[in-house]
Amino acid sequence: MARIQPFHVMDLLARARRLEAMGRSIIHMEIGEPDFATPRPVVEAAQRALDEENIHYTPAAGLQTLRSAIAAFYRRQFDLEIDPQRILVTPGSSGALQLVLNVLVDPGERVLMADPGYPCNRHFVILAGGEPVGIPVGAESGYQMTPGHVQQNWARKSRAVMLASPSNPTGTLVPEESLRAIHAFVREQKGALIVDEIYQNLVYDRSPVTSLSLGDDLFVISSFSKYFGMTGWRLGWVVAPEAYVEALDRLAQNIFLSAPTLSQHAALAAFDARTRQILEARRTEFQARRDYLLPALRELGFGIPVEPEGAFYLYADCSAFGMPSGELTGRLLEESGVAVTPGHDFGHNAADRYLRFAYTTSMENLKEGVARIRRLLTPS
Amino acid sequence: MARIQPFHVMDLLARARRLEAMGRSIIHMEIGEPDFATPRPVVEAAQRALDEENIHYTPAAGLQTLRSAIAAFYRRQFDLEIDPQRILVTPGSSGALQLVLNVLVDPGERVLMADPGYPCNRHFVILAGGEPVGIPVGAESGYQMTPGHVQQNWARKSRAVMLASPSNPTGTLVPEESLRAIHAFVREQKGALIVDEIYQNLVYDRSPVTSLSLGDDLFVISSFSKYFGMTGWRLGWVVAPEAYVEALDRLAQNIFLSAPTLSQHAALAAFDARTRQILEARRTEFQARRDYLLPALRELGFGIPVEPEGAFYLYADCSAFGMPSGELTGRLLEESGVAVTPGHDFGHNAADRYLRFAYTTSMENLKEGVARIRRLLTPS
Repeated sequence: MARIQPFHVMDLLARARRLEAMGRSIIHMEIGEPDFATPRPVVEAAQRALDEENIHYTPAAGLQTLRSAIAAFYRRQFDLEIDPQRILVTPGSSGALQLVLNVLVDPGERVLMADPGYPCNRHFVILAGGEPVGIPVGAESGYQMTPGHVQQNWARKSRAVMLASPSNPTGTLVPEESLRAIHAFVREQKGALIVDEIYQNLVYDRSPVTSLSLGDDLFVISSFSKYFGMTGWRLGWVVAPEAYVEALDRLAQNIFLSAPTLSQHAALAAFDARTRQILEARRTEFQARRDYLLPALRELGFGIPVEPEGAFYLYADCSAFGMPSGELTGRLLEESGVAVTPGHDFGHNAADRYLRFAYTTSMENLKEGVARIRRLLTPS
Repeated sequence: MARIQPFHVMDLLARARRLEAMGRSIIHMEIGEPDFATPRPVVEAAQRALDEENIHYTPAAGLQTLRSAIAAFYRRQFDLEIDPQRILVTPGSSGALQLVLNVLVDPGERVLMADPGYPCNRHFVILAGGEPVGIPVGAESGYQMTPGHVQQNWARKSRAVMLASPSNPTGTLVPEESLRAIHAFVREQKGALIVDEIYQNLVYDRSPVTSLSLGDDLFVISSFSKYFGMTGWRLGWVVAPEAYVEALDRLAQNIFLSAPTLSQHAALAAFDARTRQILEARRTEFQARRDYLLPALRELGFGIPVEPEGAFYLYADCSAFGMPSGELTGRLLEESGVAVTPGHDFGHNAADRYLRFAYTTSMENLKEGVARIRRLLTPS
């Protein structure tokens, strides 16, 4: 447990709440959760299920109808045939990550991942008894691991490589040729490739892709939380190689019993044309926010050398302001009423130099936030 | 993963479904889930939340209102003051067990538990890197560990004792004096006591109790699934010693983010007087079922030497029928259309001799089930 670190943002959030309770206005740019409500058709599907269902346990791997609906989603959007039996519905993508890492990793085995990255990944590997290996990545590789990184760091006891595309906290994607080369290398080493695609459909200026196009021997983690706007419903999924499905299912039976039933019925409406229309309008809104915030932050002096193409995050170098990011986030909160997340929540690599801005708040709030930051950092 | 065993009942259930698909009638007495729907006031609370809330993440430890409602439940029913901050809301009691065992158990440490017992407990200890120690218990101790068992088996590297009262699969309770002595011994050894109270309010001919009455230095696991009829909602809780709350919360932030939001809003209605009335009527129905099934099975020749006082299970010795329980469950299913769970799902101790009957089906079905078993086992 000593190795499971708290999120620094939680302290920050608690301080923000105290300030708000004292009447201070706080602009929230720290939260990795869309500000939009669950789409209406999804809510209506939940209402129908509440009227009709008894809300009992489902099979551990999820409702068969939902597994088929997810398969249909891959068919429709990516022209891919995925056997629904390879799809397991989980309590959030957290549940999917936990299943996959517990099934793959034996004590002492290494899992390679980018630093900065989603901090829970490191913790899931530790809880499975494994050794997370954070590979420092920077602007020169778009904050993603390259095939070179993987080859140089693959060693005895290496078991898996985790990629996230788009990435939290950087919003950057793994280039297709890079993904292809990493996949081929890991396959050759008889390792496993795990790709986090929970922000898959939140990409701008380009079409969404899935690494499942590369083959059926990798693990893809996905979620109803981010693009589909269903955070509090706690529902995600994993697409696994066929040989692992039995073990994943066995583990899910033991540690979860099943994902929330009502959420599963609601999610059946997540792929509807009507829902899709709502979600695409939101994607356009996220893009507009990024297109405003990115140049605004650069103009203030933040370093964002690689244009983030997805998710709803900007990972910004703050070294121009002459103080560590932990101190800057504190001052931004206390003096300007702007909450952002310090780099320390995403790893060790140059964490002192980076902040994460989440554009999960209205354009109006973003503009007010930028104005406040300007007053703090560029005193007249 | 090799040590995470599948549930035998899952195979049995799949076979039962195949038989049903072929038109055979199956009486289900294998399922550890109430046959009643979620109580109406709880469903209505969910409907209101769907109309009013945006279903975002909650704090990792749960809605403050729900933590307070659980504290109020302990105050009202047991006259106990529990600080709501010591209560963490979890995705099912599975989530609570996982948090507690991961926080308590370091690699190689031992956790003592009764065999037979709830099989996932063993698996949670293994996943935490610990060593589950199953203590064979039989009718002579009411299928529960005694203080003597605990003392004899407490050794170097022993970290915790897990009790369940009422127990799954035996329906028996830990006597109060025994609980008191085990608590005192474990405290003296600076170990931890974990008590599973997920069937707490499903007791017959006696009043429910809570081991929290013994002090504030033990872990109590509870659930909205069984008594409260909310299985598919995936919601439970843990009451923890204050010193462990921070670590549990930190782990919950990492592995769950939060329990399902809508379920938490719904559960606020679980303690209402109107809900309570519904649940108590169901408890009376469960008691009537037990009072029918217990003598009926004894009359057929099953050995149930200790009267189960709680939960909705009868753990029955089938050695009179001259075949291992695995074979008997197979024949009961194939030849009689009655599904029950073999002892192997609950441990190693005399598992060949025992079956678990769940009275989670109507009185009419129970009677039909008994008639079918009679025809198989006592041919005229």
